[in-house]
Amino acid sequence: MAQHRLSRDQVIWSFGPGLQPVLEVEPGDVVTFETNDCFTGQIRSEDDLVTDIDLERINSATGPVAVRGAEPGDSLIAEILDVRPIEWGVATLIPGFGQLIEQVQAPLTRLFEVHDGMIRMNERVSFPAKPMVGVVGVATGGEELSNGLAGLHGGNLDDHFHGKGARIYFPVRQPGGMFAVGDMHAAMGDGEICFTGVEIAGEVDIRFDVLKGKQATWPVTELADAWLPHATHDTYEGAAQLVSEEAARLLVEEHGFSVEDAFIFLSVACDLGVAQACKPAPGGFGTIARFTIPKIDACPLPFAV
Amino acid sequence: MAQHRLSRDQVIWSFGPGLQPVLEVEPGDVVTFETNDCFTGQIRSEDDLVTDIDLERINSATGPVAVRGAEPGDSLIAEILDVRPIEWGVATLIPGFGQLIEQVQAPLTRLFEVHDGMIRMNERVSFPAKPMVGVVGVATGGEELSNGLAGLHGGNLDDHFHGKGARIYFPVRQPGGMFAVGDMHAAMGDGEICFTGVEIAGEVDIRFDVLKGKQATWPVTELADAWLPHATHDTYEGAAQLVSEEAARLLVEEHGFSVEDAFIFLSVACDLGVAQACKPAPGGFGTIARFTIPKIDACPLPFAV
Repeated sequence: MAQHRLSRDQVIWSFGPGLQPVLEVEPGDVVTFETNDCFTGQIRSEDDLVTDIDLERINSATGPVAVRGAEPGDSLIAEILDVRPIEWGVATLIPGFGQLIEQVQAPLTRLFEVHDGMIRMNERVSFPAKPMVGVVGVATGGEELSNGLAGLHGGNLDDHFHGKGARIYFPVRQPGGMFAVGDMHAAMGDGEICFTGVEIAGEVDIRFDVLKGKQATWPVTELADAWLPHATHDTYEGAAQLVSEEAARLLVEEHGFSVEDAFIFLSVACDLGVAQACKPAPGGFGTIARFTIPKIDACPLPFAV
Repeated sequence: MAQHRLSRDQVIWSFGPGLQPVLEVEPGDVVTFETNDCFTGQIRSEDDLVTDIDLERINSATGPVAVRGAEPGDSLIAEILDVRPIEWGVATLIPGFGQLIEQVQAPLTRLFEVHDGMIRMNERVSFPAKPMVGVVGVATGGEELSNGLAGLHGGNLDDHFHGKGARIYFPVRQPGGMFAVGDMHAAMGDGEICFTGVEIAGEVDIRFDVLKGKQATWPVTELADAWLPHATHDTYEGAAQLVSEEAARLLVEEHGFSVEDAFIFLSVACDLGVAQACKPAPGGFGTIARFTIPKIDACPLPFAV
C-alpha cells in the first residue's frame, strides 16, 4: 500500500469519457488530494462578490487518478479517510439562485471562521463543522458534464454525508475509473438552498479499492449504518422516481426481495431525501435525491459480494 | 393536572372550522387517545385488500379536544409523551399510488408483527419500530379538509419525527384549538413512497399546553435537538419553497437574523427534507416538506417567548 499526493494545481473542470490520469495507483493505495474551494480562491473577503469573478473557474476537482484493475462493469470504491478544511470559508448569495433569493439584495458574501471543529458565522451564531466534498466522480460513459453538474458518474453530488468514513461505490465506465474530487464544504445542509455551503479549500485523503464485476447505475454510498443510492433529474419528482427505482433494484437484485416487498420496505423503513435541491437554479442544475437504506438484518449490503 | 381518556369510537374524519369538542381540558392535562389504524380495522389479514374496503372510513382521528385558554393567535402545544402500537400492523400497495406502482401487481397487503420494539416483515427482514402518528391537527381557519390531507392546521403531516418526545406547536385558529390525532404507524420512512407506513392501532398520550400570543403559519415541531417547520403543496418544489419561507420567518422574526443570514444559515447548517412525498398520489394529496433547524447557540428556540 502506497501513499500519494496530488497538488491543487492538477485539476479538471468537467467529467467526460476521455480523461487522462495524472496519477496511477493500486487498489489499497491512499491519495491525499489538495482541493481548491469552489471559487478557486477568487473570493477571499466579504468585499469579493460572486458576480465579479471568472465563472469558468469554479468547481475544480483534483485528479484524475486511475486505479489499476478497475474496468467497465466494476465498481470503484473511494473511501474518504479524512477531510481537512483550512481555517476560513465563504458562502454567497447568487442572483437568480435559491428558494429565498426574491427576498434578498443579492449578491452577498459571508465569511466564516473554522476552528476546533466549529464554524463561526458571527458573534451570535456558531455551529459544528461537518467537512465533506461536493464534487466527487469518475469518467462518464460518453457525455461531457461540467463539474457543477451531477450525473450517473457522480460529479456535483453535494451530499453532506460525503465526509470522513463514507465509502462511495462509483460505476466504472472507463478503464482505471478516473477519479477526481473537489468542492469541499466545512458544512452544508440538505437542500443547500442558497446553492453554497461553507465553501473552503483543504485536503482530502481517499483510499481506493475495486469491486470486480458489480456496479449500480448511480453512485451508491456506504456509511457505518446505511446505504445511500443517489440519482439526479431536472425536477425533484423525477429524481425521487429514479432513486426509488435504483434503491428497489439493489434490494431485488442483490437481496432477493420481490419488487413488491422492496417497494413496501422502502416506504416503511427507509428515508427518501435530498442532497442538493436549490431552486430556482438557472443553468441546468438538477435536484439530487438519495434513499437511506438502513443496514438491518437481511440487508447488510446492497452488493452481495 | 388531570388525566383523561378518549375511546377510538370518538373520531372525526375531517378538520374544519366548526369542530365541537368531545372533551375539554386544562393546560398541563394529559389525554390518552385510543386510535384506530388508518383503515379503521377493515384490513386484518393479507387477504383483505385496500380495493375492497370502504374508503370513506380511512384516517380517523380521535377527538376533538378543546384546551381551555387557547385562542386564535396562540399556539397549542401537543407534547407526545408516548405512542403504544398494538402487536400487528399492515402496509398496502394501492393502485395508482407511489413511485414504483408501475412495477408491481397491485393491490397487495403485507402483515407485520410488532414485538419488543422490533417489526417483523418476514423470516429474513426485521427492523426497529419507531412508533409515530400520521394525522395530528387542530381546527382550520375556514376550510374543510379530509384527514387524508395536510394543511396549515396539520392533518396528515406523516412526519416520522412525530413520536415520543416531539412537541408540536399548532397555530390556534378556533377557540380551544380542537385537537385530534390518529393514523399511527409502527414505523414509516421519509417519503412513505407506497403511501402507507406500518399502519396500526394503539394509544397515544398527549400533554397539552398553550403559548399565548405567538404562532407560526404552519405546525412547527420541537425535538430535543432541533426545530422542524412544515409546509405542504401539490408539488415538492412548492412545498420546499413554502417551508424555506417559514423557516426564514422564524429565524428573522424570533431571532433577529437578517433575511440574508437566515437564507445562508438554512443553506449551510439546516436540512431540507420530506415527510410525505408519495408520487403519483391521485386525489389531491400533496407533498409535505420539513426543515430541520438544529438547536445551536443563538437559535435554541424559534419562539422567543
